[in-house]
Amino acid sequence: MTSSNHKSTETLAKKIQFAVIGGGVIGGGWVARFLLMGSDVKIFDPDPEAPRKIDEVLSNARRSLPALYEHALPPEGSLSFVNSISEAVDGSDWVSECVPEQLKLKHSVMAEIQSHCPKSAIITSSTSGFKPSELQQGSDNPEQIIVAHPFNPVYLLPLVELVGNITTVDRAKAMLTSLGMFPLHVRKEIDAHIADRLLEAVWREGLWLINDDIATTQEIDDAIRFGFGLRWAQMGMFETYRVAGGEAGMAHFIAQFGPCLEWPWTKLMDVPELTDELIDKVAGQSDEQSGHYSIRELERLRDDNLISIMRGLKTQNWGAGELLNQFDKGLHKPLLDKNQSNTSLITVKRVIPADWTDYNQHMNESRYGQVFSDAADTVMIRVGADEDYIASGLSYFTVDCHIKYIEECKAGDDIYVASRISLAEGKKLKLAHQMCNVDGRVLAEADQLLVHVDLQARKSCMPSEEVLQRINKLAKQYGNSAGEIK
Amino acid sequence: MTSSNHKSTETLAKKIQFAVIGGGVIGGGWVARFLLMGSDVKIFDPDPEAPRKIDEVLSNARRSLPALYEHALPPEGSLSFVNSISEAVDGSDWVSECVPEQLKLKHSVMAEIQSHCPKSAIITSSTSGFKPSELQQGSDNPEQIIVAHPFNPVYLLPLVELVGNITTVDRAKAMLTSLGMFPLHVRKEIDAHIADRLLEAVWREGLWLINDDIATTQEIDDAIRFGFGLRWAQMGMFETYRVAGGEAGMAHFIAQFGPCLEWPWTKLMDVPELTDELIDKVAGQSDEQSGHYSIRELERLRDDNLISIMRGLKTQNWGAGELLNQFDKGLHKPLLDKNQSNTSLITVKRVIPADWTDYNQHMNESRYGQVFSDAADTVMIRVGADEDYIASGLSYFTVDCHIKYIEECKAGDDIYVASRISLAEGKKLKLAHQMCNVDGRVLAEADQLLVHVDLQARKSCMPSEEVLQRINKLAKQYGNSAGEIK
Repeated sequence: MTSSNHKSTETLAKKIQFAVIGGGVIGGGWVARFLLMGSDVKIFDPDPEAPRKIDEVLSNARRSLPALYEHALPPEGSLSFVNSISEAVDGSDWVSECVPEQLKLKHSVMAEIQSHCPKSAIITSSTSGFKPSELQQGSDNPEQIIVAHPFNPVYLLPLVELVGNITTVDRAKAMLTSLGMFPLHVRKEIDAHIADRLLEAVWREGLWLINDDIATTQEIDDAIRFGFGLRWAQMGMFETYRVAGGEAGMAHFIAQFGPCLEWPWTKLMDVPELTDELIDKVAGQSDEQSGHYSIRELERLRDDNLISIMRGLKTQNWGAGELLNQFDKGLHKPLLDKNQSNTSLITVKRVIPADWTDYNQHMNESRYGQVFSDAADTVMIRVGADEDYIASGLSYFTVDCHIKYIEECKAGDDIYVASRISLAEGKKLKLAHQMCNVDGRVLAEADQLLVHVDLQARKSCMPSEEVLQRINKLAKQYGNSAGEIK
Repeated sequence: MTSSNHKSTETLAKKIQFAVIGGGVIGGGWVARFLLMGSDVKIFDPDPEAPRKIDEVLSNARRSLPALYEHALPPEGSLSFVNSISEAVDGSDWVSECVPEQLKLKHSVMAEIQSHCPKSAIITSSTSGFKPSELQQGSDNPEQIIVAHPFNPVYLLPLVELVGNITTVDRAKAMLTSLGMFPLHVRKEIDAHIADRLLEAVWREGLWLINDDIATTQEIDDAIRFGFGLRWAQMGMFETYRVAGGEAGMAHFIAQFGPCLEWPWTKLMDVPELTDELIDKVAGQSDEQSGHYSIRELERLRDDNLISIMRGLKTQNWGAGELLNQFDKGLHKPLLDKNQSNTSLITVKRVIPADWTDYNQHMNESRYGQVFSDAADTVMIRVGADEDYIASGLSYFTVDCHIKYIEECKAGDDIYVASRISLAEGKKLKLAHQMCNVDGRVLAEADQLLVHVDLQARKSCMPSEEVLQRINKLAKQYGNSAGEIK
């Protein structure tokens, strides 16, 4: 990197002075978010363990937050541990109060903050439950104090609920947006704001289910993460139900499902009366929120989002993604079948997913590379360089790849890859692939050079005798199955 | 594709006979899941609109379900619309009852199904609320009837709650697993099973928030999808709170947060008493569920999952993903700054995310292609082939790319790309890129050939005068900035 380039990145970071009072999970999360977005932070926490705890949160944040973006974050700000609240908030633009949820304690901390910070500073409390009016008791500059309630992990999750004076909230919104967060203005103050009220409702219901031996924590979590949790990561509850209601609309959905609310399903039965007025209100707000999409459009947006989320989880082999990976193994079997065909080695057979396309409305060039990488993986398994072989410390790395893009490819297209071994020579293995549409028309060609490696030493080495023999056998059978490339 | 290959794919599909009674959103979803997994389906629905409705669900399913997998699904089964329940269930292995939520109606449908289907068939109700014992009333073969409660969209979401006779449930589990679904055995029958009890709790709380003018449907949805919805798509509620509780563990978490449950936060206040017994039960179940991971491991799993989910949403430019894309634009600015450097054209500067790595524990070869594709995008914007230009119907397509892999790259690595224009000749544009680590060591090189295209005709054409001029200017400045490749 040239220094001039570093400099232009630095100017991106708004050099705001942040102060954090209390270095627990939430305080540490704020510290990490501020620092990694390029700002300087002063923190006060009397706990001698605070530096260690903050450091642990920071190390998690450093390995994850930058990975959300396609471009580098500004250079990290500097962190100072100070010995008092007054030292921390002196000259600050923003103060995050993150002390335990005890109103008396919060009052004394707020008084200390206000008597030492600039009049222009925004003072925020991370409280999950208290209202700004409670936090402001005894203050002679109450408008300065607002609630900015973040969600764990603060360095990754975008949501911050803002409650309090509108002028201060508007300034806080701009600040949080510049940190990559999503500020949500809670317009009327209420105990526990919005999200925690919803969370408490589920938490209570969950405790009842465990208490009554209906389900375990694992079963409840599975009921969430293999089902509606996937929906809520993208549309929340009302937009999801709008789609479920179909063309008949939201009012119809409520009319249909409303009565269930009065059935004796849960322990907690105080239900708002479903007057026409309330139904119209919900339906009207839903129109305002999503009315610019037809139900069919919303269905497809929902489906594409769900696919992208689940495909993301596939890369981590977790939850719904682990389930999909397991299922994929069965689908892959026909391609691994030694008797699949006498004329060509089919190494990939799949549909192009929507998350592989780019602004030109076709499959991104890099995803052709993915298809050919997957094709090579099938060859690997066929020649015995499989999971067990890799676990034994041996594998193949690609060292050269040349792709010729012949035709465009769109989301939903069925494609397959025919592969052959064009060279097998000791550590070296050359593969030639043709990616075709269902009619056999060639869409792209690739030449790959792979080298056999020792995974421990990360250096090239000879393959096992068995792998060499299987490569030679396969090369004999499929050496000329795909058309000559170049 | 050769026909022998088709055949081996077909054998994968279990040729189970499915019958669906009722073709609404849920019935249609079952039909789609069965058909696309290769099975034959008979459906009965007296509504003359049923074929149209089913066809709409099917068309959504066809464009989405196959995209979840890296391999082709088996050939689609065949769908028959029949004129009676008896015709539908004759010879069936599995019957899905999807009629409206009226117990009387369900009783008469169940009786009709049972008198015509094989004794060995599994009869499932998709009911959201009724218990198997209610559905079985009046049946002389009650064990045959179970609840199999799926979630919309049935063709994508994995969860199915199974309630009823354990032998029948076990057979149903195997069947659903073979359809790519996640069967969850609800061990004790209860109104609304597990997930809908949690959903009802949130729905009620949401209606109160709207009724009391605290929040709109949009605000509630945002509070979910920018916050805990992202958490719940991967770990659910209890595992998430276990991580939040930190090293002190789940019992500590409950002890700390339990009292809040009794605060006057919500309209619904019946809370299970937090006896030591209940706390131990929850903590013990949580140990059982997640105790094989340390908290630090769980934090990192959670973070990697959240990143993968949000990066998935980036590809759809939706919700948290849209927010990240907006933020990325600001981060990209330094690279688009015309005065960024006099010596080299830096086109990419980023961190490698965890979802870009593969089984060799390094960045997958195709992601090098992604980095170089992004590098080309930066050049495009610099020469004026930007968003507006693309909207005007002109763009560049990559037609050839040659990558040399020199060094491995791991998740978390900081990299940059230095690019130059190696050829600018009418429609043709050649770019040469070097991907380097922070110390300037070259990790990979790429030669890309791009051709200017008319996006309407999808054919090559000449670029605009302005773009040509800017390319030439850039070529003069940076023509030799990266080392000569090959």
